[in-house]
Amino acid sequence: MRNRFDRQLADLNRQLIDMGELCEIAIAQATSALKNGDEEAAKDVILSDARIDQMERDIEHLCLKLLLQQQPVAKDLRMVSAALKMITDMERIGDQAADIAEIVKSADTSLVRGFPQILEMSQKTTEMVADSIKAFVERDLSLAGGVRAKDDMVDERFMQLRKGLIEFILHADESDAQKAIDLIMIGKYLERIGDHATNISEWVEYSITGVHDGPFDTKPV
Amino acid sequence: MRNRFDRQLADLNRQLIDMGELCEIAIAQATSALKNGDEEAAKDVILSDARIDQMERDIEHLCLKLLLQQQPVAKDLRMVSAALKMITDMERIGDQAADIAEIVKSADTSLVRGFPQILEMSQKTTEMVADSIKAFVERDLSLAGGVRAKDDMVDERFMQLRKGLIEFILHADESDAQKAIDLIMIGKYLERIGDHATNISEWVEYSITGVHDGPFDTKPV
Repeated sequence: MRNRFDRQLADLNRQLIDMGELCEIAIAQATSALKNGDEEAAKDVILSDARIDQMERDIEHLCLKLLLQQQPVAKDLRMVSAALKMITDMERIGDQAADIAEIVKSADTSLVRGFPQILEMSQKTTEMVADSIKAFVERDLSLAGGVRAKDDMVDERFMQLRKGLIEFILHADESDAQKAIDLIMIGKYLERIGDHATNISEWVEYSITGVHDGPFDTKPV
Repeated sequence: MRNRFDRQLADLNRQLIDMGELCEIAIAQATSALKNGDEEAAKDVILSDARIDQMERDIEHLCLKLLLQQQPVAKDLRMVSAALKMITDMERIGDQAADIAEIVKSADTSLVRGFPQILEMSQKTTEMVADSIKAFVERDLSLAGGVRAKDDMVDERFMQLRKGLIEFILHADESDAQKAIDLIMIGKYLERIGDHATNISEWVEYSITGVHDGPFDTKPV
């Protein structure tokens, strides 16, 4: 029984890594589409989002099967229930990347070249997702803890971006104002991706320690 | 067994109605806080959001119990799996209402008086949530179908709002531009609430017909 459980757990780990990588790819694709105003790349993000949605359902099935067949307790139960929460946040990261891609598809985002904070935010949030998943798999509390610090940097960049874009708008015509507002939206989506990555890292901490330290009063199923 | 299942299903219906009402209340509270710049009312929204989160977990538990104990098939299974999806969208509606409240708490939103579309969007999305839940409980396909038409109106209002606010920004100083961008964000959150209410109505249709007609390729667990 334990051997089978260990195999299923290894399977869960592998799928979580895959889903995390898909999220990293989706953020990178969205950023690349944005940087180059590339509508085809934007369509790839939508496809990645659909794959992320599918992975969420697959992992959800696996977790439910694990819970039913193995009835895990203590650390094992925490691991499965943390996984169930992590995939919800990963799914939302896919949504936000798709939201960015939708803007790239329908609008002129060339203004991004004047606002490097967006690319920094994208870089940082990709790292946050990678760190969170690695922390889960390697049971690395300190790596998980570092994600929150990176989120503070993402939030700071977003404040700078927003301020810069508002100053820009004050001297812009209607068309440029429209573009600036699209960029503020994109910045907001990246800021949200950072929040979801932070949530993931907090569920990782919970899976290791049994204590959930997030700002929300949520507990896993 | 069937009697017990029927009781559990009635319990599920009642809890879904309660959660739907909480969502309606959260949207109304957020709108009222926005209209009056009322920070205390904004705090109530955050409390409502926490209650909505709790209800999501409670209903999730009930659905899992139903699935495990009763192993429903066909229509009954569809009902439980649709409920599992609906509560995810309701939970996100609570999040968006809380997002609006966060802006009210930290910014001057008095500009809203010049943009009645926001209040119209709020009114319409509240109706959409109410209609979706009513359609689920009463198995009313036509009521569920009407939700999508209302979402088109919400989207149209958002486009008008956005256009009006961009024109406003072009003649605004920095402080007013900041306020206008906050209102665009609030409009976007309401537009999202409309999307989630539409998702709910599509899961209701699925629970009745077995066909999911939404823009997403998602299928329930």
